Amino acid sequence: MSREEMDALAKERLVHIARGWYDQMRDGVVPFIRLPTRTKQNIAYDDATEVWKYGEKESTRSATTEKGAVHLLKMAYLVWFLKKQLVENRSSTLRELYYISEGWKKAKFAAQDESNLLIEDLEIITEVQREAFHLRPEEDGASIFGPVRLRETTRRGVKEIHCQDDVGEAGYPIPNNVDNLEFIDHDAKFVVAIETGGMYARLMENGFDEEYGAVLVHLKGQPARSTRRVLRRLNESLNLPVVVFTDGDPWSYRIYASVAYGSIKSAHMSELLATPQAQFVGVQPSDIADYNLPADHLTEQDINALKAELTDPRFATDYWRTQINLQLDMKLKSEQQAFASRGLDFVTKEYLPKRLSEMGVI
Amino acid sequence: MSREEMDALAKERLVHIARGWYDQMRDGVVPFIRLPTRTKQNIAYDDATEVWKYGEKESTRSATTEKGAVHLLKMAYLVWFLKKQLVENRSSTLRELYYISEGWKKAKFAAQDESNLLIEDLEIITEVQREAFHLRPEEDGASIFGPVRLRETTRRGVKEIHCQDDVGEAGYPIPNNVDNLEFIDHDAKFVVAIETGGMYARLMENGFDEEYGAVLVHLKGQPARSTRRVLRRLNESLNLPVVVFTDGDPWSYRIYASVAYGSIKSAHMSELLATPQAQFVGVQPSDIADYNLPADHLTEQDINALKAELTDPRFATDYWRTQINLQLDMKLKSEQQAFASRGLDFVTKEYLPKRLSEMGVI
Repeated sequence: MSREEMDALAKERLVHIARGWYDQMRDGVVPFIRLPTRTKQNIAYDDATEVWKYGEKESTRSATTEKGAVHLLKMAYLVWFLKKQLVENRSSTLRELYYISEGWKKAKFAAQDESNLLIEDLEIITEVQREAFHLRPEEDGASIFGPVRLRETTRRGVKEIHCQDDVGEAGYPIPNNVDNLEFIDHDAKFVVAIETGGMYARLMENGFDEEYGAVLVHLKGQPARSTRRVLRRLNESLNLPVVVFTDGDPWSYRIYASVAYGSIKSAHMSELLATPQAQFVGVQPSDIADYNLPADHLTEQDINALKAELTDPRFATDYWRTQINLQLDMKLKSEQQAFASRGLDFVTKEYLPKRLSEMGVI
Repeated sequence: MSREEMDALAKERLVHIARGWYDQMRDGVVPFIRLPTRTKQNIAYDDATEVWKYGEKESTRSATTEKGAVHLLKMAYLVWFLKKQLVENRSSTLRELYYISEGWKKAKFAAQDESNLLIEDLEIITEVQREAFHLRPEEDGASIFGPVRLRETTRRGVKEIHCQDDVGEAGYPIPNNVDNLEFIDHDAKFVVAIETGGMYARLMENGFDEEYGAVLVHLKGQPARSTRRVLRRLNESLNLPVVVFTDGDPWSYRIYASVAYGSIKSAHMSELLATPQAQFVGVQPSDIADYNLPADHLTEQDINALKAELTDPRFATDYWRTQINLQLDMKLKSEQQAFASRGLDFVTKEYLPKRLSEMGVI
């Protein structure tokens, strides 16, 4: 879909909400909207798409109460503003949007959490992403280094960039709106999504991308939506396997889970953002013992997070149960950069080639 | 200085430390090192260079105590490892270095804070930056967008990049080692260093860089050393005025101060990292009242930080005393994106042109 078609679609969907309220009022119905209930209890695995999605439960917001009426008023202002923004071909950050509501009297947002949530509601109702409304988050920041040539449609024209030849050592920074990106060609065999900047730079310095045809993607901790969208598209449109390489602790396993299965907050976008084929490389709890990695003791929070993962449907596999129980027994965690204790080449010469060939990726 | 010359110099300076200890032992002296005392009390303004530097006070570390001996042992291992790294043309992150010390027995670092501090000590003794030892921090991440063409020497060859024409909307990401960068030519009149990603994107979307010949630099909060070094070099080698645009709160004023005057932690590098000519644009406390900006109440921590700034020599000017006292009276703070409450163009059409012309920059 071209940018113009996407803008037209987003505008049409916004106007459709307002038209619904108009029709309700014309028919003597107090205006309302209906949405899936956005809680952990209402998330279910969808076999067809292999991602976690909202279930059948719905909530209704109606103008019959003052609270409900103010909620719809805020949504109406938001629809008006976003439509105007599309017509004028402007964009704004989620933070700016919160400040813009200063002039909306009773519809002014109390905090940015409120406007963010309402934007997510709009995404669910309209079935388009916030990027289609020209809204962007505060920070971008993840980056790509590897044998991929892409085309980015920017406000200053179309740019073609090869993510090894045309970039500096920091790589190609992923823009907020990934739908302005098109992958033109590539010489890659797989994608490694990496949690820390240190490991991203290590793989690049050691020439891992060149030797194995790997596209390195720096996740910068819990990945932004744009980063998850890029991974999904590298997997789907270029047909490249995606592997996720993180620290060996429960918080990092959640990073993997959000790449592979999506998150509760963005369950309505799972089909666009999740990469169900993504595989976890490590650091595995078994690696800590096998390679005698420098490790720290698990904290009380770590232990609780691991126990929570044992009941999380995203981790309901033999592999994860074995690894998590092993970690609870050992009471240890290791960072991915702990491989440096065995020399700066160990991770690219020994660990990754062995793991990736076990996993069938190379 | 070429990369090879820099490597040779760094190696020579490292060996010089070891030679010093050797000579001490040969002469029957228990080995020691001497360093400036690294506390706030030992920082003084240097009129010649216009930055804050360490003063005359010195501390001695000697092997006469067990603690001192272990300290020198760790430094000796570090000197050995860094020299080896230079010879092999490798590099490593500060985090990897901490893990590498796993194999150093009694010289193993207890935590990364310890290795980081020791690296800073080495910088002071050798008078070269850690980048010269091929050490890099975990994350890079700040970026540039504007009419500058630069040349980056990377492990994959030399890249020439124009920071408007050859980059996507996220701009050119600043690499860790800025000394591999060379500015080739430019069409710029000044540099705006911007605290938040939202405002950086706003200025870019509104075409502020094109209209005014501005180089936009995203600081990403408290700026990394590489970012401060880039600002200094844009100011010094291209002779461009630098202005700093942040939120209107005491923490943001510290961001400005670290750009303009340096910080205690890196006072030994102030001449390389600080840009004494850098001017503060805003958000000024007076702007909050003048433009009736959406504001939050100061917290107890904010008030204490403002009071601390009143006694900080870096803020000992009439301008800052007036603004800080005004803010303490108003008890309010505002973010830079709060200008969005007056429309998305206000900041680039009204506020910045007015401020920059008052300041004599445009």
